[in-house]
Amino acid sequence: MSEPAYIPHFADRLIAAVRAKHTPVLVGLDPRQEGLPPGFVSGQGAHALARAYQSFCCEVIDVVAPLVPAVKPQSAFFEQLGPPGCEALAETIRYAASRGLLVILDGKRNDIGTTAQAYADAYLGPRGQSAWGADALTISPYLGDDSLTPFVRIAQERGAGIFVLVKTSNPGGGRFQDLVIDSLPLYRHVAAFVKGLSDTSVGENGYGIVGAVAGATYPEQLAELRQAMPSTWLLIPGYGAQGGTAKDCAAAFDERGLGAIVNNSRGIIFAHARAPYSERFGPTRWQEAVGAATRDMIAELRAETSAGRLVP
Amino acid sequence: MSEPAYIPHFADRLIAAVRAKHTPVLVGLDPRQEGLPPGFVSGQGAHALARAYQSFCCEVIDVVAPLVPAVKPQSAFFEQLGPPGCEALAETIRYAASRGLLVILDGKRNDIGTTAQAYADAYLGPRGQSAWGADALTISPYLGDDSLTPFVRIAQERGAGIFVLVKTSNPGGGRFQDLVIDSLPLYRHVAAFVKGLSDTSVGENGYGIVGAVAGATYPEQLAELRQAMPSTWLLIPGYGAQGGTAKDCAAAFDERGLGAIVNNSRGIIFAHARAPYSERFGPTRWQEAVGAATRDMIAELRAETSAGRLVP
Repeated sequence: MSEPAYIPHFADRLIAAVRAKHTPVLVGLDPRQEGLPPGFVSGQGAHALARAYQSFCCEVIDVVAPLVPAVKPQSAFFEQLGPPGCEALAETIRYAASRGLLVILDGKRNDIGTTAQAYADAYLGPRGQSAWGADALTISPYLGDDSLTPFVRIAQERGAGIFVLVKTSNPGGGRFQDLVIDSLPLYRHVAAFVKGLSDTSVGENGYGIVGAVAGATYPEQLAELRQAMPSTWLLIPGYGAQGGTAKDCAAAFDERGLGAIVNNSRGIIFAHARAPYSERFGPTRWQEAVGAATRDMIAELRAETSAGRLVP
Repeated sequence: MSEPAYIPHFADRLIAAVRAKHTPVLVGLDPRQEGLPPGFVSGQGAHALARAYQSFCCEVIDVVAPLVPAVKPQSAFFEQLGPPGCEALAETIRYAASRGLLVILDGKRNDIGTTAQAYADAYLGPRGQSAWGADALTISPYLGDDSLTPFVRIAQERGAGIFVLVKTSNPGGGRFQDLVIDSLPLYRHVAAFVKGLSDTSVGENGYGIVGAVAGATYPEQLAELRQAMPSTWLLIPGYGAQGGTAKDCAAAFDERGLGAIVNNSRGIIFAHARAPYSERFGPTRWQEAVGAATRDMIAELRAETSAGRLVP
């Protein structure tokens, strides 16, 4: 493979995508057998289910590609099916990229030294440069410096990005993340280290290629992190099903309406089974439910973030 | 699938395996293209390399199966090859199990709630019950309570185990793990939580199904953890290539010679390229190098741990 003359910058690509769609909504692809609309699974076993996951995700992608800048496949649900699921994940990533979407793979990978390098090489960068072809990957920080720097280096070489877990959306996340060291909780120490990494990789728009995961379920901490790490793009889970609202996310954006993407998985992809969409559409018109739920979330976020702020 | 009448206990199975082989040596399966003996790769691309990884790992398994209780495939190197690598990983796990080895998959997975459940369902328990069929999986703790309990529950249901990262072997691990809260470093807080989980899952031999990862490169902390978490089995990386010695590991064992398994990856599987084995065997007799390196490590550990302690 020949070296590209210009290596695009992940945050600048993300910003261009957010601006093109005028929204920071990120659609989470979390396929689950029990959530699939009828008719997707034909046959028994992992291969049949993997085919169903792939078809379902590709149809979701068809609906959301004109509406949002990026999708976030959740690796766990594909891995749950074994190797056929991994194949379905690869095809889902490939299809999303072909439809012009950025792909943030939610794998929460982490390891050290050359093993971290292997994960980074596996996932970061376009297909051909990497086996899986994701634009970014979520990373867990517990292993420290030499678990993060290999990801940053390879991301930089390939125009890709990473999002490091900082303050997660789950109720039990505080167990370790909220332990206080020198009057700051652990997640702020992780944030400070992540900030250092993003500061060294800032693109044309002031954001680095190293982002942070911070949950919508902790809005005060989200606001605090926006202030503490101005060069760090935030990936916000916890919207919708987990209880986070558009209001909760508002403080995560900068004055340009940039700096954060807000994920919704179940609330969008399985909207046909949830109020108010289940009544309006039902399982047979599930694609329309996906579209309506996406547009509603776009509008909700816009209403909250446009007060005193620019829509991206 | 019919419910088994008796659900075996992971720690008791591990202890039986350690006793049967009279050693706690764990062989790490970390295939890397540049380390393979000549003749393994025929053809180009990910499929050819995945076949090479699988053949190589299966030959390593043939050599070590009579000698050691367990192997630890490193998922990253397989994932690096994309879906063909995932297939090779599944086949490697299947083959190791068929040769009577316990398989501890080093995937350092972590997520929350039902996503953590999906990872647990993917990897824990025999093939048929899980897609991948590992006996245990390594887990990262940053996400807290509801990221660990789903793994524990599914492990318990399936006679499997988990090993949670506590004090890792890498130089940068201290960045967060050594931060001090209430006069104890973070890793001790993680250890206390892990201890709670292992205490609730103790088998016939006093060990729980929740183990801890603690590096041979930090021998004092290893000794401290052995004392602090008596029901928790330790998985010790960092032996050999990373600088840890048999002496460094000695304090990790209880008075029965149990309580820890010590991993060596490169030092065993690529022994043919390392002194003193490279001179004695060279690349064409690489299997003999693997056997000699394994036997030497068994002897080194036995020499250190049998002083005042029983050999398992």
